Amino acid sequence: MNIILIDKNDHIDGTGTVRISGRRFTHIKKVLSPEEGDILKCGELGGLLGSAEVLDINEKHIDMKVTLSEEPPEKIPVTVILALPRPKALKRILQNMTSLGVKRVILINAARVEKSYWQSPALKESCIREQLILGLEQARDTVLPEVRSFRSFKVFVEDELPDMVKGTRAILAHPASDRTFPEASSGVFTLVVGPEGGFTPYEIEELSGCGCEQVSLGKRILKTETAVTVMIAKAVG
Amino acid sequence: MNIILIDKNDHIDGTGTVRISGRRFTHIKKVLSPEEGDILKCGELGGLLGSAEVLDINEKHIDMKVTLSEEPPEKIPVTVILALPRPKALKRILQNMTSLGVKRVILINAARVEKSYWQSPALKESCIREQLILGLEQARDTVLPEVRSFRSFKVFVEDELPDMVKGTRAILAHPASDRTFPEASSGVFTLVVGPEGGFTPYEIEELSGCGCEQVSLGKRILKTETAVTVMIAKAVG
Repeated sequence: MNIILIDKNDHIDGTGTVRISGRRFTHIKKVLSPEEGDILKCGELGGLLGSAEVLDINEKHIDMKVTLSEEPPEKIPVTVILALPRPKALKRILQNMTSLGVKRVILINAARVEKSYWQSPALKESCIREQLILGLEQARDTVLPEVRSFRSFKVFVEDELPDMVKGTRAILAHPASDRTFPEASSGVFTLVVGPEGGFTPYEIEELSGCGCEQVSLGKRILKTETAVTVMIAKAVG
Repeated sequence: MNIILIDKNDHIDGTGTVRISGRRFTHIKKVLSPEEGDILKCGELGGLLGSAEVLDINEKHIDMKVTLSEEPPEKIPVTVILALPRPKALKRILQNMTSLGVKRVILINAARVEKSYWQSPALKESCIREQLILGLEQARDTVLPEVRSFRSFKVFVEDELPDMVKGTRAILAHPASDRTFPEASSGVFTLVVGPEGGFTPYEIEELSGCGCEQVSLGKRILKTETAVTVMIAKAVG
């Protein structure tokens, strides 16, 4: 937590005074253990970065006076399309992609995605939001990425993907490809990562038909979260 | 576990028959649940990749006939020098760097490394090896990276680093730098990553004095493991 993210519900008057309790308060108290008058880094969710002066801290909450001044870091122009990974990995990946500044995340179904993953509480809106917030706090960002999910591969590929890839360089990680990741450019990227075990030939064909270039990340089999980070790092140059 | 790594102690005769029990056996039984005659991917630790024919499987162990034929993937020409991270992160990072094919990992002390980290069981040789093996199993590799640690920053920088960076492009991740990561090249890299909170100005000066170029990975503060993966991805082009 490299920044305290302020939510609009934290405000207790109209002059920038906020009261924070719960998880953020516990972290502030335990890790930062500030005293009255100390200045902490903060940001308003969806808004600006700034500083917060500690007005009062007790056993239950902390009151701070917030001054916002600075734009958050820009998002990177990357959409990640990800075959739904196992719930534990999903959490880390969402957090990680958010900290890296990914603009949009699309979770899709694929033949080799275990059906039970779609029933996981990790997919609840509140759980996803929790991971995104952790990613923002890590990276000192305030703007949530957009996250959507599609339970039908076919519907996604036919109705959504063609528009989504328009004007972007769409890259599909596919171990069997003999092409490597293109040289970094300043373009807009759509990155597609399959499930453990990979996309099926039919899925590869459908994705390629929508303009996704197949590239191999090398002979090594990487965990989904590693592969996603590697692709993002290569895309943003 | 995308490959079964065979250790020399697994051999029960001189003709390539191995008997496997313990963690690997449990995984094979539960996840792969093979039958007699099935062929599984395997590799000999430090040696070649190949296949293993299942001879017999029961409740306690599996016997297989191993045939080795193929070179493992090449290591990437990268040394990562890392201020000792917290033990939980260390495990993941070691596993991750191994899966990415890093050749050598150096764990060093720094002023902002918590002293208690050096007492962690995660630093025991057996614990480090366990993470490296998991990384090899993930990536279908057989060759362990070299891992060394230095508890004195000063001794490391004065006695080891100058030789280590010779002939390599040495890159120090430093948020305050106004330079970005150099364009990917096919060169040999030494990548240096500091502790949470960063290296001190003295440490930065010493590292720079040994030829490490300071580069920023951007405004966003990344977890150590994310920063390491990003740097490796950028270095190997």
